[in-house]
Amino acid sequence: MRIVIVGGVAGGMSCAARARRLDEDAEIIVLERGAHVSFANCGLPYFVGGEIEDPDALLVQTPASLRASLALDVRPGHEVVGVDPDGKTVTVRSDGGVEQLSYDALVLSPGAAASLPPIPGIRSPRVRTLRTVEDAVALRRQVGSGARRAVILGAGFIGVEAAEALAAQGLEVSLVELAAHPLPPLERELAWEVSQELRRLGVDVHAGVAATAVEPGSAADTVVLADGTRLSADLVVVSVGVRPDTAVFENAGIPCDGGALIVDEHGRTGVAGIWAVGDATASIDPITGSRRPVALAGPANRAGRLVADDILRPGLARPIPRPAGTAIVRVGARTAALTGANRATLAAAGVAHRTLHLHGNQHAGYFPGASPVHLVVHFDPGSGRLLGAQAVGRDGVDKRIDVLATAIAAGFSVEDLIDLDLAYSPPYGQAKDVVNLAGMVGENVRNGTLSLWYADDVDEVRASALVLDVRRAEEWRSGHLPGALHIPHTELRGRLNEVREHAGGRPVRVLCASGVRSAIAHRVLAHAGIDSASLSGGMQTLRAVLGDDTDRILEKEPALVGG
Amino acid sequence: MRIVIVGGVAGGMSCAARARRLDEDAEIIVLERGAHVSFANCGLPYFVGGEIEDPDALLVQTPASLRASLALDVRPGHEVVGVDPDGKTVTVRSDGGVEQLSYDALVLSPGAAASLPPIPGIRSPRVRTLRTVEDAVALRRQVGSGARRAVILGAGFIGVEAAEALAAQGLEVSLVELAAHPLPPLERELAWEVSQELRRLGVDVHAGVAATAVEPGSAADTVVLADGTRLSADLVVVSVGVRPDTAVFENAGIPCDGGALIVDEHGRTGVAGIWAVGDATASIDPITGSRRPVALAGPANRAGRLVADDILRPGLARPIPRPAGTAIVRVGARTAALTGANRATLAAAGVAHRTLHLHGNQHAGYFPGASPVHLVVHFDPGSGRLLGAQAVGRDGVDKRIDVLATAIAAGFSVEDLIDLDLAYSPPYGQAKDVVNLAGMVGENVRNGTLSLWYADDVDEVRASALVLDVRRAEEWRSGHLPGALHIPHTELRGRLNEVREHAGGRPVRVLCASGVRSAIAHRVLAHAGIDSASLSGGMQTLRAVLGDDTDRILEKEPALVGG
Repeated sequence: MRIVIVGGVAGGMSCAARARRLDEDAEIIVLERGAHVSFANCGLPYFVGGEIEDPDALLVQTPASLRASLALDVRPGHEVVGVDPDGKTVTVRSDGGVEQLSYDALVLSPGAAASLPPIPGIRSPRVRTLRTVEDAVALRRQVGSGARRAVILGAGFIGVEAAEALAAQGLEVSLVELAAHPLPPLERELAWEVSQELRRLGVDVHAGVAATAVEPGSAADTVVLADGTRLSADLVVVSVGVRPDTAVFENAGIPCDGGALIVDEHGRTGVAGIWAVGDATASIDPITGSRRPVALAGPANRAGRLVADDILRPGLARPIPRPAGTAIVRVGARTAALTGANRATLAAAGVAHRTLHLHGNQHAGYFPGASPVHLVVHFDPGSGRLLGAQAVGRDGVDKRIDVLATAIAAGFSVEDLIDLDLAYSPPYGQAKDVVNLAGMVGENVRNGTLSLWYADDVDEVRASALVLDVRRAEEWRSGHLPGALHIPHTELRGRLNEVREHAGGRPVRVLCASGVRSAIAHRVLAHAGIDSASLSGGMQTLRAVLGDDTDRILEKEPALVGG
Repeated sequence: MRIVIVGGVAGGMSCAARARRLDEDAEIIVLERGAHVSFANCGLPYFVGGEIEDPDALLVQTPASLRASLALDVRPGHEVVGVDPDGKTVTVRSDGGVEQLSYDALVLSPGAAASLPPIPGIRSPRVRTLRTVEDAVALRRQVGSGARRAVILGAGFIGVEAAEALAAQGLEVSLVELAAHPLPPLERELAWEVSQELRRLGVDVHAGVAATAVEPGSAADTVVLADGTRLSADLVVVSVGVRPDTAVFENAGIPCDGGALIVDEHGRTGVAGIWAVGDATASIDPITGSRRPVALAGPANRAGRLVADDILRPGLARPIPRPAGTAIVRVGARTAALTGANRATLAAAGVAHRTLHLHGNQHAGYFPGASPVHLVVHFDPGSGRLLGAQAVGRDGVDKRIDVLATAIAAGFSVEDLIDLDLAYSPPYGQAKDVVNLAGMVGENVRNGTLSLWYADDVDEVRASALVLDVRRAEEWRSGHLPGALHIPHTELRGRLNEVREHAGGRPVRVLCASGVRSAIAHRVLAHAGIDSASLSGGMQTLRAVLGDDTDRILEKEPALVGG
């Protein structure tokens, strides 16, 4: 049995290692176009930023170590330029020339290539991507040789990591993103926290604007934006996305969809003897059912392992799991992470959903270092099923998103979060963790105990309802919506007539800082027969949604009414 | 409707708050024997240790704040001394005298009292427990007034926290535990890490020995141990466990089991109109089905909330979840945490189980600060169902245990862990997280791809099998089992004849540092027809099991054979 694997990173290498563990006799050949296999592609930005100092640390395995440990025949510098599925051979080009290689099983793990925006000057020598060890070493060299100004095109995960890395090296960094905010998959109320953190790092953020040209110059290039901004750049990093690197295989007749190899639940391409894994494949979103590529290492590794199972233990392999797309990124002192579907994906797929916003501390408030985890949870209002979650904060974000990813994998409803028995002591959590609280709020919403309104609808609410602010006086004075009535929640039971008077028949929309006190106030109002709702996530979420407009919209004068 | 709640911490206060949220009209009276309600009992050791400086920070709510926010009638200093279930009244004693109070619904949340070991001198004024704000303030005062030597009786969670706290204040601390190691619920191979960390903190650990007397003295007391050790003590903290504080209620005819109030899945005691929650109740272990008290804040809070639901929305309340007993403790720079059942509980309940040991880094090995999470996972070998998990490490322990607690709540099998799509980037995890790896190892064990042997059986294995050590030469030289054969795993395929020769028909039991390389070696050996098994957790787990005997048993000489 000869297994030929195309691509020696993540999915391909996981497949090779698993194949050897299952079969000592198989001949396992890994063909890698690049100079390195099994390198730490997710570590590249941290090498650029100087946190990882030795480039050799990025080389997790070498052909020699893989031969010694797993008897793998790993061939870097070998590019597959053709496939003959009928003859079961691949055509391989290397420094040694072109050769034919036969296979019994062929596994395609070619990965994805960086997309380049089709703008003038994008081939300037000062422009590069950040996909390979060579890219990272070259960027680090440019930093070391005096580059002062960097422009990054694309504020996805890698773009944000590159911005952080170059800012850490002391460069002036501009980050350009076509979408409305950095980290486009993040909800905007969380992305605001990321934008603010990038600014604290000194990164100059240009969101909602396209780059239209790179103008090469002698001392530096100039990146031109659609709004006329001109950014001088000693180096330009492009990270606007990736596209599956599959032309050779599509030409060989292996079915693709938008360039991504189509595979079944065992990674089979539909062409006998050929499997595919990783960034070059499309997988099915477990929440929406739509098909899309997922360029993440974890799902690629899992798929690689299961393809080896399917090749060597046909009929026994478990199906490849549908990846939830859990992802995480460090931005300065903040972490942003997400799992499952976001609002845009749910809306596009027509999936009904409700959203919760919470700002619970990562550990007991009375223990030093408490800081909020800003959490967003989407669920199906009918069944209660969890659909997605996102969080941003200084600490504890990764834990909550991993718990929620596990809960989503379990098919849990939002109420099931109440009952999760999470590890609590003051340095680590709260007796009611923010994840538990999300469950409680979700249950209250589902059974009608709580009605929510949303910061996205603030204009409409202000036009049609009385906004009731139940925070303390000093919170009110620090910034409040114009026209709101202020009654601290502790006084509300005795001042319901004032509420009725000011409402004048309009509904009442309550808010506090985070949604806890306004939920209590909502119960008081609802019991009094008043049409009421509580602002999801409170003023903290409202400020994030208003973003740069916050100071323009909120009033800081002392309250004239009810204060 | 008048709801009377006995006990104003955790479960009782959660019940009161939820009751108000559900019903604005209910009269809600909370009777608390102590001086404070809703105080941060889990924070007390951190106040003693000085991390929390202001004792007021421990008072999360006050009667006044609870009246203002939730219209609760909270009465500290009020002790319930009798219950008349037929007349639906309680007898209450306070500074104001004794009164009868009628109720429509009565919720018992009296908590548990500290157990005192029945030894001479235990009532010495230098002996105290750590259960109340007053206890913590008094301990802090003793520290401030020059106490130098502390003895802690009982190395459960609170005892270990107290040891850490007092050591942090510069005291000489001795920690005495009757069980074989500190944190008795922890498996011994993990408890060893905790013992070592306690020693690094300067704590003098006496495990496997009873205290037999406290001898009062003029300058200091002396704690006498069964092995003859005499420990001088300016203060003695007793934390040997708690017992449900239920005498009044048992006398009133409310059914108890071993002192714990018996409740159904809605917290009902079986006596009409009386519910109970928290440390004073027994709950059912979701893994073994046995009934036991769980003295933890999270489950108490959840039960309190659901009892309010059952009182005010009868027929609609969800059942109270069966707590997995997830718990966590910080010990110096280490964290120890556990969820579900441990080996002793499983054995006592006759539940078949297999155990996995892993030592995966909390984040990418090439990223600065990588450190191992020492993970133990128990599962049912028949169904694969997860039964329990424990971990110790410097970082990332809380996250893994919370993910595993969620997986256990989901009824996941060990294989399901493979597919968990956890958040990965180099500062936060690994593309194959240690939780995923536990799933892979478990799957391999279940389907026969991997056979394991255990450090607990090392004596038997050494007597009956050839131990094959496949680590690198320098690892071998740093300490190895006498009589073992050394062949690095990278050389194994070419040296199988040596293995057969040394084995002489005996089975071969392989080990490496953590179990990764020995699993590869196992596959090579098994393919060659050799009876083989891989040491679960490798030398890291073996050293922890050998504990203080490690240096006596392992040889450090250069290898004579096969090296």
